[in-house]
Amino acid sequence: MSDTKKHQIDIKVRGYHLDVYGHVNNARYLEFLEEGRWAFFECNHSLEPFLQSDIAFVVVNININYRRPAYMNEVLTVETFISKVGSRSGTIKQVVSLSQTGAVVADAEVTFVLYDAKQDRAIAIEGDMRQLLEQLLVTTEVAQ
Amino acid sequence: MSDTKKHQIDIKVRGYHLDVYGHVNNARYLEFLEEGRWAFFECNHSLEPFLQSDIAFVVVNININYRRPAYMNEVLTVETFISKVGSRSGTIKQVVSLSQTGAVVADAEVTFVLYDAKQDRAIAIEGDMRQLLEQLLVTTEVAQ
Amino acid sequence: MSDTKKHQIDIKVRGYHLDVYGHVNNARYLEFLEEGRWAFFECNHSLEPFLQSDIAFVVVNININYRRPAYMNEVLTVETFISKVGSRSGTIKQVVSLSQTGAVVADAEVTFVLYDAKQDRAIAIEGDMRQLLEQLLVTTEVAQ
Amino acid sequence: MSDTKKHQIDIKVRGYHLDVYGHVNNARYLEFLEEGRWAFFECNHSLEPFLQSDIAFVVVNININYRRPAYMNEVLTVETFISKVGSRSGTIKQVVSLSQTGAVVADAEVTFVLYDAKQDRAIAIEGDMRQLLEQLLVTTEVAQ
Repeated sequence: MSDTKKHQIDIKVRGYHLDVYGHVNNARYLEFLEEGRWAFFECNHSLEPFLQSDIAFVVVNININYRRPAYMNEVLTVETFISKVGSRSGTIKQVVSLSQTGAVVADAEVTFVLYDAKQDRAIAIEGDMRQLLEQLLVTTEVAQ
Repeated sequence: MSDTKKHQIDIKVRGYHLDVYGHVNNARYLEFLEEGRWAFFECNHSLEPFLQSDIAFVVVNININYRRPAYMNEVLTVETFISKVGSRSGTIKQVVSLSQTGAVVADAEVTFVLYDAKQDRAIAIEGDMRQLLEQLLVTTEVAQ
Repeated sequence: MSDTKKHQIDIKVRGYHLDVYGHVNNARYLEFLEEGRWAFFECNHSLEPFLQSDIAFVVVNININYRRPAYMNEVLTVETFISKVGSRSGTIKQVVSLSQTGAVVADAEVTFVLYDAKQDRAIAIEGDMRQLLEQLLVTTEVAQ
Repeated sequence: MSDTKKHQIDIKVRGYHLDVYGHVNNARYLEFLEEGRWAFFECNHSLEPFLQSDIAFVVVNININYRRPAYMNEVLTVETFISKVGSRSGTIKQVVSLSQTGAVVADAEVTFVLYDAKQDRAIAIEGDMRQLLEQLLVTTEVAQ
């Protein structure tokens, strides 16, 4: 069970990920992060009933640090977990690191709200959904 | 009127268009071509009634030649025109060239069918739609 | 001269910019922002000598708010200006808004350092470069 | 050994792969194909000495058929193999199919030349390189 709280995927850096500097492009990391989030949700079956309802996780802020360039053929590990559950928004922490050494390449905080398609508005995080998200919460991040 | 038959847009090559080779990436050209096609359709108001109906232009084949790499800061011209109208499919020709010299960077033939969303199938190119497409047809391409 | 301090480009939302939700994808905005920054630097000729030397502007953080979805055919204006010049880093503010109404779609703070390729390290922002950046600084942003 | 002749990777369709039609975008397939080719070369160690020399495989044409839309959450298999070795160019065949049913989603012929960076020109496919490529050749494709 705890294995899904901190979910990891690996992505190998390919030629089309790079840009004029020979590094993975800034924008491409956001696709890597999105890939990590889809995989995270997929592995947490308790969230499925919600994802199949009219409730969507809508990203309202991404705060990403680029700490070290990533180069051709490097294998990146994208780690994804829920780091905060507030009353109106939550935060997903994502860390991209070199698979081999663990060196951090980029890390991001992704803030989301729950959007109710029927009501066409963001809703409070409460009830069953709150409980589920809190069960997935990882709070061990002490310092950064 | 004839100006819309051969439609041109310019795209300046930026850092995020390039890949490991320092050239515009193969896949990116297909976005440049799609940009050119949207702009082409936008400039041909006679097609609007169809595009707003349930008829969609669905691409079934792209045959693209990469003739010369494109580099950072080069300005590319994407030219778009209808080169063939058949009974069941049509072809859009698109040529990407250096804006300054005219040197061809890439050229493509994009084959499309008319897809009727209501019937959920491709339909014959006939009637008013055929007439409109034939009016836009550019047939002067002799050899390649 | 003041027109280059706050630089604007327009981008029309096309089919390939969207994602499963029918909105411009989160990652795509970072390409829009990069496009805006290249155009900004291009229009500020005073910076050219530096950009042609071994000094590169390296992005170390992007903090982006997604405030309103952008839809097919909407025209977005990307405004770019320098909002802070510190001793070791600077900040570029970028605002994506609907061209027609001015409604803010997304806004971002992009933190950069000056990277000296010869020394292979970030350098202090001082001397001529500091002076140039301060001349471009826009400090009128009172509230958020 | 024969397993590397026809190389397969799986890609799950995510939200950021789609476009305005809710299908995987045309351009994105070319990234899927490029991913498949990097993985193919990686698995064929006999080619390594060449890839580490000044010889590059440069794509000069891609001819891709879009046969069926791909939707969110579908798992695509990209199969890659060498289908032709000519005197001046070769062809890589790539087939994208639904992992579960084998239904073909797209197929492509990717024509490449060998480019010698030192001579700055395409070179004939001969000698050791020709032998290696012919060993990888899959010629069982009867009809299409």
